[in-house]
Amino acid sequence: MKLIMAIVQDKDSNMLQNEFIDANIRATKLSTTGGFLKSGNTTFIIGIEDARVEEVLALIKKTSHAREQFMTPPVSMDVTGDSSLSYPIEVQVGGATVFVLPVEQFRQF
Amino acid sequence: MKLIMAIVQDKDSNMLQNEFIDANIRATKLSTTGGFLKSGNTTFIIGIEDARVEEVLALIKKTSHAREQFMTPPVSMDVTGDSSLSYPIEVQVGGATVFVLPVEQFRQF
Amino acid sequence: MKLIMAIVQDKDSNMLQNEFIDANIRATKLSTTGGFLKSGNTTFIIGIEDARVEEVLALIKKTSHAREQFMTPPVSMDVTGDSSLSYPIEVQVGGATVFVLPVEQFRQF
Ligand code: NI
Ligand code: NI
Ligand code: NI
Repeated sequence: MKLIMAIVQDKDSNMLQNEFIDANIRATKLSTTGGFLKSGNTTFIIGIEDARVEEVLALIKKTSHAREQFMTPPVSMDVTGDSSLSYPIEVQVGGATVFVLPVEQFRQF
Repeated sequence: MKLIMAIVQDKDSNMLQNEFIDANIRATKLSTTGGFLKSGNTTFIIGIEDARVEEVLALIKKTSHAREQFMTPPVSMDVTGDSSLSYPIEVQVGGATVFVLPVEQFRQF
Repeated sequence: MKLIMAIVQDKDSNMLQNEFIDANIRATKLSTTGGFLKSGNTTFIIGIEDARVEEVLALIKKTSHAREQFMTPPVSMDVTGDSSLSYPIEVQVGGATVFVLPVEQFRQF
């Protein structure tokens, strides 16, 4: 048995939670803020048998890895009232930090 | 020293917290949502010397174990305005998932 | 790699977070309530290489250790409308509880 703590961006957390449900993996969700990222993030706590650790890591990687995305900034207007053209820019989204911890006892009541 | 993480249902968390206080066990409470259970749950983080681990587990089991409870569903009314009789049904409440983790260093400042 | 969980008082958490940022230490912040302290507290989760554990502990100690502080209680008024003199009293603030946990795998995606 291992305990996996996974910190992902809020925007990826719903999709990841659905992956866990599909795979019958029990995950508990903590609302966290953090680190260098200003945006909110979500921490999952997952208890999992040793044989399925790599499967959990693969789901986290697939759903939450850092990637580039094009985003169109909101249109800005200058003092004359002219709106300047707004070009899509590339931003990085996603990213996951994951700890796999040893467990001495796992109990369910 | 061990770190115990215990995930229990919200409805059991106050009683469990009182048990911890009575037993002079320091517990920190995280608000969590989770897993397959749709209802809110609470995660306790407890730092405890090795000799008292079983005592903590017994308190969690006593307060938060899964059990059947009879609940009377709200009265429903059909289209003719007749309220149908509402019979108590058995539902499962409670349940706890607990991890005991090894600790390399424990410090208080 | 180690995972450090540090529970500090809310009032110390901003300063500690700034210390972590200055030292380029990634920390995730959980909002917690807890233990014997009625006031809110904050739990930091920090992933750190073994060689920097003592540095992290020193930052937590410096920023969040328990200490005495003089506080002037709010002025109270008796039934005759006379306000009694309010003297500063000494209260304890701060305090940190810290766990250093072993990590089997640390992954970033
Ligand atoms: Ni991709
Ligand atoms: Ni019972
Ligand atoms: Ni001092």
